[in-house]
Amino acid sequence: MEQPRIGDVFGEMIRDAYAVRTGVGPRPLAGGRVPRPVIEVIERDDGLINGAPADHYLDEPHEWQPHDHRALGLVRGAVLDVGTGAGRTAVELQRRGIAVTGLDISPGAIEVARKRGLRDTVLNTVDTYAALARARYDTFLLLGNNLGLLESRQRAPVLLAALAALARPGARIVAQGTDPYGTTDPVHVAYHQYNRSRGRLGGQLRVRLRYRLLATEWFDYLVCSVDELEGLVAGTPWRLASIDDADRPYYLAVLELAR
Amino acid sequence: MEQPRIGDVFGEMIRDAYAVRTGVGPRPLAGGRVPRPVIEVIERDDGLINGAPADHYLDEPHEWQPHDHRALGLVRGAVLDVGTGAGRTAVELQRRGIAVTGLDISPGAIEVARKRGLRDTVLNTVDTYAALARARYDTFLLLGNNLGLLESRQRAPVLLAALAALARPGARIVAQGTDPYGTTDPVHVAYHQYNRSRGRLGGQLRVRLRYRLLATEWFDYLVCSVDELEGLVAGTPWRLASIDDADRPYYLAVLELAR
Repeated sequence: MEQPRIGDVFGEMIRDAYAVRTGVGPRPLAGGRVPRPVIEVIERDDGLINGAPADHYLDEPHEWQPHDHRALGLVRGAVLDVGTGAGRTAVELQRRGIAVTGLDISPGAIEVARKRGLRDTVLNTVDTYAALARARYDTFLLLGNNLGLLESRQRAPVLLAALAALARPGARIVAQGTDPYGTTDPVHVAYHQYNRSRGRLGGQLRVRLRYRLLATEWFDYLVCSVDELEGLVAGTPWRLASIDDADRPYYLAVLELAR
Repeated sequence: MEQPRIGDVFGEMIRDAYAVRTGVGPRPLAGGRVPRPVIEVIERDDGLINGAPADHYLDEPHEWQPHDHRALGLVRGAVLDVGTGAGRTAVELQRRGIAVTGLDISPGAIEVARKRGLRDTVLNTVDTYAALARARYDTFLLLGNNLGLLESRQRAPVLLAALAALARPGARIVAQGTDPYGTTDPVHVAYHQYNRSRGRLGGQLRVRLRYRLLATEWFDYLVCSVDELEGLVAGTPWRLASIDDADRPYYLAVLELAR
């Protein structure tokens, strides 16, 4: 069997989801006639596979979860939207007259974000952008579960240091996470146990995305509890300032520069 | 990375889709709270992966495609519904007072079909059932693209002979297929070419299904044109009696016992 090729999975998927939503441009068809919903496929290293409709990456504000709206209320000053994707929240911030830069590593996602009107975009990793950019920000947004970009005990302090390098005095991070430990699904409970047995955080997912002929490399994506987050932040330039868990198991964490 | 385990992919998926649709029983949740749509994942041997919502396997008659309704109008006498799945069409035939048996190899699918009220079910392959059963049928239904069960040039005559062994005089097969060759999607055009280069029919898909931790073995599923179907039927106890392609690229084929 042929192996999938490494490529811009998220970008190809978002391009197709945008074509399906807008009805403009080529899009995948079922049997050549019926437009099919674009599905994001995620493989986990325990063999689990999950598909989920990708259309939500394009949701307009009236379709958002309540915590997304509350997250935008926590924004101060100039914003760097980390993992901006199709610009779901960045476009809305821009509409409100807030200075916002959308950063993503996916060329296809940035292309769609620009089509949707996002003016200030960066196609780069946080690390490289922090090393090169002169721009500085007051708020870093990690929405859509992008607290997961902390990845691991090893990676979290590195990412948090890169964000600190891009930060103005008094800057904050507004990140949305999900507490994974409320589940009773035996597949997930066993996975958390398996992770701990190999020295990882319980919700430290090892995953890859697939879309049509493409796959990403395997990467870590962290789903952690607030307690775990507190442990990861300790010793970094940031401190955990507040948690909003009104939509449990989802939560919004605000981190502030320690000085 | 762990490999998925071989198991009743279709059955597990249909059980979950049924739980989501009815709101009864345990069902997979996103982040432990929001019920997520159940997605069927299909891998093809060129590395293509596709996800599609599984809910349509449970569609009620008012949600069907037009050709499904026309297919039921082609039914005569006692019916064997081959690959009955969750009993989508068999339950409706039973409701109309028609003698119908639902056959499937998936224990989970048969379980859901029975929950939905289908009384006469067979958990078996066509081949084994043909060798063991005393029952005989007037109509064999292969709906939901189940013309694909013909698989290949090698398998088609074997399956058609098994159906002939289960047939009463004058019996017919009503099968729904899809002509694959109208597509302009370069991924599919290249796959058809790849298939022909290795001596297969263009639309002879080599696929496996995956759901959560489970996978099927790799198997062939045939998407063929009417011309190709005519070639496959030649030399079998059946002859192609009519084609209804009003919903192109989908079509209904009626095969009749040659004598």
